Amino acid sequence: MKIVTVSREFGSGGREVGKRLADLLGFAYYDREIITAIAEKSSLDEDYIEKTIESGITRSYPITFSHSFAAYIPAAMTPAPGIIASQHAVIKEIASKGDCVIVGRCADVILEDLNPFRLFVCADMSSKMNRCRLRAPEDEKLTDRELERKIKRIDKGRKESHDILASYPWGDRRGYDLCVNTSGVDIKAIIPHIGGYIEEWFKQG
Amino acid sequence: MKIVTVSREFGSGGREVGKRLADLLGFAYYDREIITAIAEKSSLDEDYIEKTIESGITRSYPITFSHSFAAYIPAAMTPAPGIIASQHAVIKEIASKGDCVIVGRCADVILEDLNPFRLFVCADMSSKMNRCRLRAPEDEKLTDRELERKIKRIDKGRKESHDILASYPWGDRRGYDLCVNTSGVDIKAIIPHIGGYIEEWFKQG
Repeated sequence: MKIVTVSREFGSGGREVGKRLADLLGFAYYDREIITAIAEKSSLDEDYIEKTIESGITRSYPITFSHSFAAYIPAAMTPAPGIIASQHAVIKEIASKGDCVIVGRCADVILEDLNPFRLFVCADMSSKMNRCRLRAPEDEKLTDRELERKIKRIDKGRKESHDILASYPWGDRRGYDLCVNTSGVDIKAIIPHIGGYIEEWFKQG
Repeated sequence: MKIVTVSREFGSGGREVGKRLADLLGFAYYDREIITAIAEKSSLDEDYIEKTIESGITRSYPITFSHSFAAYIPAAMTPAPGIIASQHAVIKEIASKGDCVIVGRCADVILEDLNPFRLFVCADMSSKMNRCRLRAPEDEKLTDRELERKIKRIDKGRKESHDILASYPWGDRRGYDLCVNTSGVDIKAIIPHIGGYIEEWFKQG
């Protein structure tokens, strides 16, 4: 089974990279579908699931709590039981169906034993802000400062939920096979080269 | 002018990547030549220059000194004056001559204003150890533990000399356009894809 996982900074175009790679390679593509499947499995609300998975478990606690007190936090403040187990089950089920590209949701770590190709997509802050404004009309109402804060907040959540599971920190080169910086880059034009790299990597593996 | 800088972990095959990329792209290739040129400019010994540039300035001090006392360290213990200035002058001179690939020596930071394509090459420890043993017969005498310590010591030096100059730490994805993990990868076979990516990147720039 050939699995490509795409981890990405918010606004870096990781989703577009994942979608285009899936088209090029002829692989199935999973992104938002994962949240929907977890909702079905756990009977929880999709928004709640997305927030919990993307924002990191620790962010469910009030920030004044030190991590060392985590054991004393009342159960009501921890994420709904089963949500992490469902995330693992859904991602493993997807991976068993056939060659695929999976965007986010810690699939790189959850599927570690299947030796996926792990791609990380990043960009500098101004490129990410530009991309956000182009893609999401609701971001146009934000000031530059607000948009930058939003981007940093989302990435902080991704980092937290990743780092609980992984041996290397989120975005650390050592945890990925390729890190691509999309600053000032036309994504469509670079896809054939990334795709070629990935095909060669699987051929060797 | 098209400039590709290759930063690399010791044993990751960064040198081979750089050489093969230069051949593919038809660019000049610089590595050890930089040290020779600095030696000519500064009338200092090549080995001394290599040690100073690769190992980082702070490593010239006894390790018992705290960094905060650096100002009180006798002049004799700081690197020979002019060595850093010569490094900058030599690398800038090389870059002005034409399209090139430059391996190491902080060229990514020194040439920042010329907007080089910044490549980072890494690999996991066991791949780096294998590569070292294959390439350097003298490493065969080392135990695994000694070889691992050697690799870490050299990379620590590279990190230190880089981080004095740069805005992002050595090996941090944000300071590079592409980070390639060569663990278990046949370098020769991936070069066309990295080269294609770089050519497309320059076309867009």
